[in-house]
Amino acid sequence: MKLYGYWRSSAAYRLRIAFGLKGLNWSDVHVDLLADAQKSAEYMRKNPIGLVPTVELVDGTILTQSVAILEWLEEVFPTPPLLPPDAKERAHVRAAAHTIVIDTHPIQNSGVVKHLKTQFETESGDTKAWMAHWMHRGFSAFQNLCRQDTPFAFGEQPGFADVCLVPQLYNAHRWGVDLALYPRLTDIENACLSLPAFEAARPENQPDAD
Amino acid sequence: MKLYGYWRSSAAYRLRIAFGLKGLNWSDVHVDLLADAQKSAEYMRKNPIGLVPTVELVDGTILTQSVAILEWLEEVFPTPPLLPPDAKERAHVRAAAHTIVIDTHPIQNSGVVKHLKTQFETESGDTKAWMAHWMHRGFSAFQNLCRQDTPFAFGEQPGFADVCLVPQLYNAHRWGVDLALYPRLTDIENACLSLPAFEAARPENQPDAD
Repeated sequence: MKLYGYWRSSAAYRLRIAFGLKGLNWSDVHVDLLADAQKSAEYMRKNPIGLVPTVELVDGTILTQSVAILEWLEEVFPTPPLLPPDAKERAHVRAAAHTIVIDTHPIQNSGVVKHLKTQFETESGDTKAWMAHWMHRGFSAFQNLCRQDTPFAFGEQPGFADVCLVPQLYNAHRWGVDLALYPRLTDIENACLSLPAFEAARPENQPDAD
Repeated sequence: MKLYGYWRSSAAYRLRIAFGLKGLNWSDVHVDLLADAQKSAEYMRKNPIGLVPTVELVDGTILTQSVAILEWLEEVFPTPPLLPPDAKERAHVRAAAHTIVIDTHPIQNSGVVKHLKTQFETESGDTKAWMAHWMHRGFSAFQNLCRQDTPFAFGEQPGFADVCLVPQLYNAHRWGVDLALYPRLTDIENACLSLPAFEAARPENQPDAD
C-alpha cells in the first residue's frame, strides 16, 4: 500500500508508527505541504478535504482520515493489538487519544494557523500562543486520562493513545511548548521513542525531511 | 446511564441521536455551558478537558469524548448497527464522519470561538466568517465522500456519518451558513429528521433549551 504523507504532518506520523508496530510494508508518496500539493485537483480527488494522510491499498481503494485508518488497521491487522479487548477500556484509550486528535491537533495544525494569520493578520508570537494554549489543554487532559502505573499510556505495550500522543509532543517541541507540567507524558514519549517502530517513523528520519 | 450534556452542544446531540437509534434509556444531566459549568472542579474530575458530553454508566464508569463513546456504543449495543460490516466500508463511513467531528467541529465550537475573541479581539462578523469557513470545508468534503444514491449518507438506514452530520447542520443553520452548495446534505438531513430518534434529539426539544 501507499501512504501519501509529509514528514512533519503529525497525522501521517501516527500512521507511520502504527504501520511499523503492525509490521506492515508500505511505500511513501511525499505530498509537499509547503507547495500546497495537498490542494491540487489530482490529490483532492483522492482526499476531498485536501489534507494528509491518504492511504491507497493495492486494489486501488482509497482511505482517508488518519483516525479512521487507525480503526481500519486495528480491524484488518489485529496483531499486535493497539486497543485492549474490554469495551470500557477501549473507550478509555480512545478518549485519551481523542483529546489529542480531536481537541488539540485540528485547532493548531498548519492549515488552520495559516488561515488564522490570513483572516486576523496575526503575528508569529500570537500564533505560537494560540498553538500552545490548545496543546496545554490537551496534554493536561491526556495526563489525567491515561494510567499512571504503566510504561506506556495504558499498558505494557504501546497502543492508540501513544500513537496519537508522540506526534503531538513532536509539535510541542517544534513550537517550544513548555512540558514541565507533564512528566508522565515525557516518560511515555521516552518509552515510545526507544522502540524501532517509533524511531523509524520520526519526522526527521523521513526522506522528504529538509 | 446518565448523559451530561447541553442542549446546543453538537457533541451531546450526536449521543442523544445514537442512544435513540439504539433504543436505549438514559437520564440527562444539564451542564450549563453559558455559566461555564463544564469548567467546574467537580465536572472536570469526570471530564478532565472540561467539555461535554460525559456518560456515567450505572456501575459508575465514566466515559468521555463523544466519538469514543459512539465507538463504545457500537461495540456494546451492536443492534441496529451504525457501521457496516465490511472493514473498508466502515473506514469510508468513519472518514466522512471525521471530516465533521475532527476537521470541522473542534475548530469552530464555542470554547474555541470564545478564545479567538479573547486572544485576537475579533468582532462577531469575523467569528461568523471563521466558523463558516471551516463548515464549508467540512461539508464540501463530506458531500464528496458520502454515497450519492442512498436515502442516508451510506445506506438505507442512518449510521455514524449521519449521526455526526445532522448536529453540524444544526450549527450551520444557527450561524447562517449558506447550504446551497450541499443539496445532498440537505436531503440526508431531511431523511434523518423524519425519524423519531433524530426528532427527539433536536436541541430545541431538550428541557434545558432556552
